[in-house]
Amino acid sequence: MLLLIPGPVTTRPEVREALCVDIAPWDPASRDFYARLCARVLALAGGRDGVHAALPLPGCGHFIIEAAIRTFLAPGEALLVPMTGAYSERMTRLAVEAGRRVVPLPIPDDRPAAPSAVAAALAADPTIGHVGMVYSETGTGICHDLPTIGAAVRQAGRRMIVDAVSAFGALPFDIARHPEVDAAVFTANKCLEGVPGIAFAVARVDRLEESAGNAGSWSLDLTDVYAHQVENWGTARFTPPAQVLNAFDRALDLYETEGGQPARLARYEANMRTLYDGVRRLGLSPYLAEDAQGPIIVNVHAPADPAWNLQVFVDALKRRGFLISNFHNTLRPSFRVGCIGAIAPADMARAVSAMGQVLEEMGIRRREAA
Amino acid sequence: MLLLIPGPVTTRPEVREALCVDIAPWDPASRDFYARLCARVLALAGGRDGVHAALPLPGCGHFIIEAAIRTFLAPGEALLVPMTGAYSERMTRLAVEAGRRVVPLPIPDDRPAAPSAVAAALAADPTIGHVGMVYSETGTGICHDLPTIGAAVRQAGRRMIVDAVSAFGALPFDIARHPEVDAAVFTANKCLEGVPGIAFAVARVDRLEESAGNAGSWSLDLTDVYAHQVENWGTARFTPPAQVLNAFDRALDLYETEGGQPARLARYEANMRTLYDGVRRLGLSPYLAEDAQGPIIVNVHAPADPAWNLQVFVDALKRRGFLISNFHNTLRPSFRVGCIGAIAPADMARAVSAMGQVLEEMGIRRREAA
Repeated sequence: MLLLIPGPVTTRPEVREALCVDIAPWDPASRDFYARLCARVLALAGGRDGVHAALPLPGCGHFIIEAAIRTFLAPGEALLVPMTGAYSERMTRLAVEAGRRVVPLPIPDDRPAAPSAVAAALAADPTIGHVGMVYSETGTGICHDLPTIGAAVRQAGRRMIVDAVSAFGALPFDIARHPEVDAAVFTANKCLEGVPGIAFAVARVDRLEESAGNAGSWSLDLTDVYAHQVENWGTARFTPPAQVLNAFDRALDLYETEGGQPARLARYEANMRTLYDGVRRLGLSPYLAEDAQGPIIVNVHAPADPAWNLQVFVDALKRRGFLISNFHNTLRPSFRVGCIGAIAPADMARAVSAMGQVLEEMGIRRREAA
Repeated sequence: MLLLIPGPVTTRPEVREALCVDIAPWDPASRDFYARLCARVLALAGGRDGVHAALPLPGCGHFIIEAAIRTFLAPGEALLVPMTGAYSERMTRLAVEAGRRVVPLPIPDDRPAAPSAVAAALAADPTIGHVGMVYSETGTGICHDLPTIGAAVRQAGRRMIVDAVSAFGALPFDIARHPEVDAAVFTANKCLEGVPGIAFAVARVDRLEESAGNAGSWSLDLTDVYAHQVENWGTARFTPPAQVLNAFDRALDLYETEGGQPARLARYEANMRTLYDGVRRLGLSPYLAEDAQGPIIVNVHAPADPAWNLQVFVDALKRRGFLISNFHNTLRPSFRVGCIGAIAPADMARAVSAMGQVLEEMGIRRREAA
């Protein structure tokens, strides 16, 4: 069974095998491992030791986003959130429930956010200290232009938190080129092809040091994760998901062997291209125009045919060995197919072929957007 | 290598093998799995469907303790914490950083908390709404008398949060007999012998419904975990650590096969007895008197001999296949040995024998407490 959902992704057998071990997290060997893993993650993000830090947090992407917001914004401070889709809405809810103020910036759901719109919103409201930006919006499949948005934030003298959960490892990111970024956050189980259970922030040390006391939560305080790391080399504050970390380390070996970020992006783009062109050949309509389509996830308009039924489609694909999501996050009905994980264009070609068979089996003749 | 640390524990091979699978958490099969797993956990805690709920939270024990405090105490409300040791201190810090008020109740570190002291503290301060009680204190090895403490809380008309992280699955707990308990919290990787990465609260539904709006955190709001569970059967709010959950389910199979809580407690008690008597035969002094010693972890006074060195002792045991903690949480120096996990009294007898060899090798002649 291939998971064609946008995470948790299909992993390689070597990664899953690395889960099958008992680990004592405070053993000296585990300390070496843990410190080396953090250093690897820091290097992947372009971070420099002493200037930036890679901070693991047990749990999921939402936890690390909330942790970044709580850590770098004091209670009541304002976050400008370009409303990219489902994940900007989630960032908004995380910030609001944590007692921070959100200024939503409406943007079209089928185009990347315009840096000029971000600049204008920041100019209009001097009380906004931070921008919260979703790099790859899983809801739509759009990857936003981080360099130009970042430049707008920098020029306005503001700070940025980057939700890179669905982007990190595939899309370029170099924190050294983004001095406006307080933290970029991500998880092991997306483009880095680990399993779920651990999240990371890569953050600026100077901003961590300035931000002590903001969080209002010991669990989600990145300044404390950092302080513990400095004072207790190679250990986590709390019991880490040790097997998940071991598998992640193995996933990073495979990532490096593949050729790192450029190679991974190239494979995902080839997956996306095979899928995007393939569904068009089947008569279906991708949700996004070609120039707005990112390499992480493709949303496809639900066909207009009255025989269309998403769960029936999903179940029939599953019988053929391909598992896609049985829900959609777009405004109009769609189905969504992830392009990430341990899959290659040949897998995607087989998936497209299976979709064609299933559409025939379901008698879907009107395939244009519903 | 046997882990004789008090969690993460040594697991059985079947549990580790259950990690080696890719899982799509929103697939219908996964929904069945997730709902069934929650029902299993609820039943283990004596919960009744509709009256109580088992609520999974990705991450570690600290996260679920903070979540319970945030959920059931509004900001500024007071928590009485009997100061059992290292884990009561951690509960205190979690509550204080979350903006709750902690009233510490000092107790001796070598005896169980007295219900009369809890009752007196509650009578003296009517502003205290909750008691935060560590059931099994890993710092000392004492298991506190939950039935009598609970009765004192109940008679005072107050509420209780139980940190059962190191207790649940081995020590008896039946939430139906504890109407004063808002939530008992625990993780998969202690007495239930799963791997780390997932925590649970078992909580009262009526109290969850009354507590919406307290948490000040979407991530750590148990009322939202519950609401999502009701509205979206069989799914998690956020990406769950799917492999960790699968392994936990397998661990619960093995738990039931073994005979559940009474059988597990009996095995751990036999492990503890083998260890406790064994170290005394070696001339060492357990930290606790026999009648205060719980079955989860044994602390042993560091020997008085000047040749004593904890890390040397730990490393030499590790070479013999036994990994113990290389730090202590007691007031006076000690070493600590966990009695939990997939180990039997025969394993513990071999560990004691290895300790004897290592003490000889290190030339430790004065073995009484330092």
